Amino acid sequence: MQKYFISSNELENKLITSDDVFHIKNVMRGRVGDKIIVSDGTSSYIAKLTVIGNKEVAFDILEERDGNPELPFFISIFQGYPKGDKIEDVIKHGTELGVYEVVPTLMKRSVFKLDPKKKDSKLERFRKIAKEAAEQSDRSYVPVISDIKNLKEIDFSEYTTKIICYEESAKNGELTQFKKCVKNIKENEKVAINVGPEGGKDESEINYLLSKGFVCAAVGKRILRTETVVFYCLSAISYEWELK
Amino acid sequence: MQKYFISSNELENKLITSDDVFHIKNVMRGRVGDKIIVSDGTSSYIAKLTVIGNKEVAFDILEERDGNPELPFFISIFQGYPKGDKIEDVIKHGTELGVYEVVPTLMKRSVFKLDPKKKDSKLERFRKIAKEAAEQSDRSYVPVISDIKNLKEIDFSEYTTKIICYEESAKNGELTQFKKCVKNIKENEKVAINVGPEGGKDESEINYLLSKGFVCAAVGKRILRTETVVFYCLSAISYEWELK
Repeated sequence: MQKYFISSNELENKLITSDDVFHIKNVMRGRVGDKIIVSDGTSSYIAKLTVIGNKEVAFDILEERDGNPELPFFISIFQGYPKGDKIEDVIKHGTELGVYEVVPTLMKRSVFKLDPKKKDSKLERFRKIAKEAAEQSDRSYVPVISDIKNLKEIDFSEYTTKIICYEESAKNGELTQFKKCVKNIKENEKVAINVGPEGGKDESEINYLLSKGFVCAAVGKRILRTETVVFYCLSAISYEWELK
Repeated sequence: MQKYFISSNELENKLITSDDVFHIKNVMRGRVGDKIIVSDGTSSYIAKLTVIGNKEVAFDILEERDGNPELPFFISIFQGYPKGDKIEDVIKHGTELGVYEVVPTLMKRSVFKLDPKKKDSKLERFRKIAKEAAEQSDRSYVPVISDIKNLKEIDFSEYTTKIICYEESAKNGELTQFKKCVKNIKENEKVAINVGPEGGKDESEINYLLSKGFVCAAVGKRILRTETVVFYCLSAISYEWELK
């Protein structure tokens, strides 16, 4: 069953009026009687389509769904802004893998130059990708895509576990920090993970993050692309915490 | 330092004559005296460029490199042939994450239709992607990209750990099999992981694989795209086995 995140208003009125109408009607070719999952980001329900119009879709609620597909804590990825559209892969696959928040972070070696005129449309696109990936992967909420920020304007004080994924750690054979941090995460904790852009991190950035309480950690023995580091971290965290 | 996989002949003659000449000269803008890593897939060396010509690059070997960035066993991914160019992402990121072999596998719900005329050029492209990803991620060998095969023509008898990544297992709340299998892998063992195409697996395929000794396992609590399943498996295996 396809999932749709709808507004609390739409849920209350049992009437979908957003872009999802187009998706239900034309992409999924929905018919009256078909079942979908609707969620307002708090609760999820199995619903049956009752009317399919051009501008609205009405539904009846059949039952509430149980089960919580979320990690027991909140992981924010501070992604050094990468080249091209790699940030979109981070958002898409990161959402499937359980990320709570992605913060596109401008770091010294980010090649990307922010064009203020294009910022809003870029963020809108990122948020659409997160919503679609959350629907496809059956998340119970849509991850937060924060405004694009400079590393030094981020307030890290509310995070308690803070990890820098650092290639040099891998080269030096450091293989203990990441697992140690992951095993020690506490329920409901806020976790910050910083991943550098393609060129890696400047030494001053490492020192800055260390001064904010981060630790450097290697993720495996090979050199990973920036987006692969994110996939690795989130997969390993799910493996440690969700699989038994 | 950029790594290049070269032939044993090139290593013996200390002379690169392949496409890598173009890469060294024009992409990396190499100069005499620059250092690179060369490997014949068995041993790796730090080398210094001594002559950079249009058709060949000569080098001196400075020292052998130690350290083994490989998993202590051999993972083959039997990837149900997915839509579009997702198989290329599986090869690229799978190589970074330590895969031994990728077998593009035709399954019932694979939308992809094999055009025999294009098969060779497709495989050539896949192998080039694997070589470049192995160089970039500092692997000690280039993963094998097998011929495109039908599921039922594959001989699974030499594999001892065999996992089907199965969405239905996740939906049923099965969360123990994957970790159990991963923890039990033995050194030098051959491990087979089957990942379905987008439409999932047909029941007859599941039964066939079960009869060949596979077990069904969920990877986390969310529904992952086909390529994300591969990233998850390999990351989790590295986390379990390489991190301490």
